Amino acid sequence: MKITSFIVTAAIASSALASSLVQQATQAGMKPIPSSKAAVLKLIDDKNNPITEAKVELGKKLYFDPRLSKSSLISCNTCHNLAMGGADGVSAAIGHKWTANPHHLNSPTVYNAVLNATQFWDGRSPHLEDQAQGPIQAGPEMAAPKELVEERINSIPAYVAEFQKAYGEDVKVDFKKIADTIGVYERTLITPSPFDDFMNGDSTALNQAQQDGLKTFIDKGCATCHNDIGLGGTMQPFEIADKYKFAHIGDFKGDENGMVKTPTLRNIEETAPYFHNGKIWSLKDAIKEMGSTQLGISINDTEAASIETFLKALTGRKPQVIYPILPPSTDKTPQPDAL
Amino acid sequence: MKITSFIVTAAIASSALASSLVQQATQAGMKPIPSSKAAVLKLIDDKNNPITEAKVELGKKLYFDPRLSKSSLISCNTCHNLAMGGADGVSAAIGHKWTANPHHLNSPTVYNAVLNATQFWDGRSPHLEDQAQGPIQAGPEMAAPKELVEERINSIPAYVAEFQKAYGEDVKVDFKKIADTIGVYERTLITPSPFDDFMNGDSTALNQAQQDGLKTFIDKGCATCHNDIGLGGTMQPFEIADKYKFAHIGDFKGDENGMVKTPTLRNIEETAPYFHNGKIWSLKDAIKEMGSTQLGISINDTEAASIETFLKALTGRKPQVIYPILPPSTDKTPQPDAL
Repeated sequence: MKITSFIVTAAIASSALASSLVQQATQAGMKPIPSSKAAVLKLIDDKNNPITEAKVELGKKLYFDPRLSKSSLISCNTCHNLAMGGADGVSAAIGHKWTANPHHLNSPTVYNAVLNATQFWDGRSPHLEDQAQGPIQAGPEMAAPKELVEERINSIPAYVAEFQKAYGEDVKVDFKKIADTIGVYERTLITPSPFDDFMNGDSTALNQAQQDGLKTFIDKGCATCHNDIGLGGTMQPFEIADKYKFAHIGDFKGDENGMVKTPTLRNIEETAPYFHNGKIWSLKDAIKEMGSTQLGISINDTEAASIETFLKALTGRKPQVIYPILPPSTDKTPQPDAL
Repeated sequence: MKITSFIVTAAIASSALASSLVQQATQAGMKPIPSSKAAVLKLIDDKNNPITEAKVELGKKLYFDPRLSKSSLISCNTCHNLAMGGADGVSAAIGHKWTANPHHLNSPTVYNAVLNATQFWDGRSPHLEDQAQGPIQAGPEMAAPKELVEERINSIPAYVAEFQKAYGEDVKVDFKKIADTIGVYERTLITPSPFDDFMNGDSTALNQAQQDGLKTFIDKGCATCHNDIGLGGTMQPFEIADKYKFAHIGDFKGDENGMVKTPTLRNIEETAPYFHNGKIWSLKDAIKEMGSTQLGISINDTEAASIETFLKALTGRKPQVIYPILPPSTDKTPQPDAL
């Protein structure tokens, strides 16, 4: 009886501590992905381009289709690989004819990108539908003129039929519609994690070390920028306290005000290398670098390890993706320009 | 009554014709993928490296993992894309740092490759386990030395655990084991089609136009090389009757005896462009070219269209692929060599 009573008391105490930690995280501005499906849908949907099953299925095909690139070899998934945390794992993105990103910019993850307040490292795009138009056309990325993409897709009757199914018989399959449909698919790519379960009331979802890490994360001030549901995704000043160690790599200087988009910390374990130019490979080093550049503090090894332990609890449950079977090209499909 | 009796008589007559066509196809050496699961397993299994669920699941991950390449950007699936008929849709394969295949060779489909008597265009490899070792190491393809691949995979504990699950605790995760596991996965990629259903007794599986096409295919002699279950996949003399129209593109001359592997016709609709150097984009043109180079006959437009109609009935049902979530790299994982 005594033992039972001790266990019960300990459990209550531990649950009370967890609940206090949830409160601290909330006060620091951190928010979970909601647990109810309806609330999630409300979060990711856009009344200007509502999510439907037909659009998502078609958007997935387009997302994986390399024929959206000039060479017909690079798809959205090449740099934002859903098998690899939604990114590519290389420091600078590599595109058409193996061209490295001219600003040495690292491909950000597509997972949870819908939660970003703004898209691209310099925040120049307001949402995913707009963002999707960029890399398809950019010379060092997929290098495909709008007209080529439209001609390719319209030459494939099975694609046209899917657009009609998604948008009605009269749909005009133009570049904007193609990008919009990719955007719809991307909005579904959110990944609830143990952190979210914890914040939503399951006090056992994070173990003690992860809870300690969360506390360190808050205490050090990391949530100043890595907050809201995205745990990042807003424009923030960069190099507030000190120069970034690899500032000399690439010419990226942020937006017109020098602001840089804070990357989401969700699935951060899967998306090395870090920073806009992908020059830091170890998560522990990235945490320490952030301490010096942004917070003006020195984060020691023990603290960095503790924060890292928490960050790994942000690795989320990915939506199951059935790899699409793409409709074949026809004699009318513009040929790849690969050589 | 009269009408019913007519329909029944017509159905019997049509079924009798179908059965006679199956007989002709069989006599011409064409064989279906069996309809029973046990017979299929017998066909694709290898007692030296038996198929198990754990190996297939792991093999799928490796197949899709770009970290098997030097750059960490090219996976088996890049050139043998399961969404695109198991090939890449470009004339010559493009690999590491956008290097085109030095012999201007086209990537053959991985679907049904297990049915090939021999692998590669020059037939130099006896089976998929052996074949898989080639492109990973080849400079113009994935360009990864064996040791690098071994080091990458062994640096990822989740991979090592999966190898242990598949092969036992004592497994040595070396390059051969990695390629063997990819081979197991590839052996499962077979695609039964309406043609197979027809050959297996469903006389309605091919419509009249497709049956007519099959008859033309046999009558013209196409099954001389495109036979057995693979409808291709054996070494055959090339340019028997006349020079190939694009013989001047690339320096490929076949094996030491000038023999070339006959490509499978399964999913041929999805795997343009055609021929070893991928210089013919239209299936109809490919059919006519084969008539002149191999059979020494002129296949007219009507006949080519009829054969094409049959060939489209070889588009098979693909195994459903759940896109894998790959285990993340660690601080010990050798970094990509992409730039």
